Amino acid sequence: VIYNTVAIVGVGLIGGSVGLALRKRRLAKKIIGIGRTSETLAKAKSLKCVTDITTDLAEGVKSADLIILCTPVELIVDQVCEIAKHCPAHAIITDCGSTKNAIVTALSKSLLPTLKNNVQFVGGHPLAGSEKTGPEHARADLFEGRIVVVTPSKSQTIANDDKNSQEVIESVRDVAEFWSSLGASVVMMSPAEHDAALASTSHLPHIVASALARATDKSNLLLTAGGWRDSTRIAAGDSQLWTQIALSNQKNLLKALAGYESSLKKFIAALKKGDPKQLSQLFAEAKEIRDAVGS
Amino acid sequence: VIYNTVAIVGVGLIGGSVGLALRKRRLAKKIIGIGRTSETLAKAKSLKCVTDITTDLAEGVKSADLIILCTPVELIVDQVCEIAKHCPAHAIITDCGSTKNAIVTALSKSLLPTLKNNVQFVGGHPLAGSEKTGPEHARADLFEGRIVVVTPSKSQTIANDDKNSQEVIESVRDVAEFWSSLGASVVMMSPAEHDAALASTSHLPHIVASALARATDKSNLLLTAGGWRDSTRIAAGDSQLWTQIALSNQKNLLKALAGYESSLKKFIAALKKGDPKQLSQLFAEAKEIRDAVGS
Repeated sequence: VIYNTVAIVGVGLIGGSVGLALRKRRLAKKIIGIGRTSETLAKAKSLKCVTDITTDLAEGVKSADLIILCTPVELIVDQVCEIAKHCPAHAIITDCGSTKNAIVTALSKSLLPTLKNNVQFVGGHPLAGSEKTGPEHARADLFEGRIVVVTPSKSQTIANDDKNSQEVIESVRDVAEFWSSLGASVVMMSPAEHDAALASTSHLPHIVASALARATDKSNLLLTAGGWRDSTRIAAGDSQLWTQIALSNQKNLLKALAGYESSLKKFIAALKKGDPKQLSQLFAEAKEIRDAVGS
Repeated sequence: VIYNTVAIVGVGLIGGSVGLALRKRRLAKKIIGIGRTSETLAKAKSLKCVTDITTDLAEGVKSADLIILCTPVELIVDQVCEIAKHCPAHAIITDCGSTKNAIVTALSKSLLPTLKNNVQFVGGHPLAGSEKTGPEHARADLFEGRIVVVTPSKSQTIANDDKNSQEVIESVRDVAEFWSSLGASVVMMSPAEHDAALASTSHLPHIVASALARATDKSNLLLTAGGWRDSTRIAAGDSQLWTQIALSNQKNLLKALAGYESSLKKFIAALKKGDPKQLSQLFAEAKEIRDAVGS
């Protein structure tokens, strides 16, 4: 599929990379970058992330076939509702928010009934974030070989004889194909499943890394090496964004933290006992899981 | 200084890299790799980490001017005592063990009085380890721009009129110069200070990363991305080696773990309260410390 017009709302690391990937692969004739600050938009345009820019959301989406929100999770629901008022009837809206249940639930409750037309929102989450932010870190290959989770709502997964329902299911397929066309592997799961899994694989590591960085005495920073640097790298992420993400997945994250604390306590107990067999068993269990993933 | 003969005991990632760096910089005429298994030694030689190899420790050190132990912490004290019996009177012995207090204390008590000659042991620790092991991962530039901690014993830092004492202090300077000549920045501190600092900057991260990897359900591994990978990377390290390291720094590590747990509990409390101000403050404190170090 080659799109006539794709609109990207929020042209930072993710949004900028979507634009670069679309251009490199010639998948869109026009790519409109939409944002709040002219400066970032101008930078994104000069970096060739987008072909056009505007700070006016209504104006930016009015002829878009596909609209991708790459904005903080807190803003997404309101922005989708606003976009739906102004975009073409056939447009598909998707997002890149790190948590999905609150967004998809809110939009299937509050958006769908108010929609004047066939506009569809399908939740998504490319697992391609980084502690780096801004279009200057965008890369055309950011999504190649990465996982993108697409999280249809319940009504988007059940086909019936209704014509609308067919369109809904096609919109899910379209969003999946969009990410595949940028080189990603798409995994479909429910928003609730996504949030439970990502609590463990993304949001928990962020708290663990941040708690570790925060526990390091500044006087010892000279003596940090690769191990500390790797294991705390994500703590350099934007603190406001991560606060939103953590709070939007509070329940799952607290559960993941409880599991982590219990794992940590096993190491502490073995160390207190000075038990080499028990301690090496724990390290070996961790290594087995880590080795299963690769570098 | 160009050495006639350097002996490297244990030719893995660190030992192999010492050899490659010495060869690249033409700092030694002969580099003898000493190890337990002929296979690893042959690999190290074919990779040009060393010029000669032997499985016989006594034979390998008998004409060495500088002997560097790159073996697991548990073996170092016994090996140094054995080496001291066979090496030349002017030889300097140093090591790369990740903990220093137990080794330096044991050797200043048990080794020095039994030494037949002027052989000196000076403790050291290049902060250049990795989850990777074996000479196949060795790199000639591994120590460039890295920190190496040199940890003289108390008697090695106090000069007096005694001729022996001057030699002792010169041996510390020689070990520092050796690492500088490989491109590293040398930091001097007492073994106790080293172990307290490294508990926080190296051994704690290893437990934190291992507890995190171990707490991850295997069914979720497909949904891990850069954050999880970075923050658990060191958990792929050798479990036996890390058991030895952790137990040899038990007291400092338990203290560092207590500090970490208290940092973690602050995040959990803020998340439970759902307090965005408190949570973003904690993330910001972590980010400030992480940003001070760089990538």
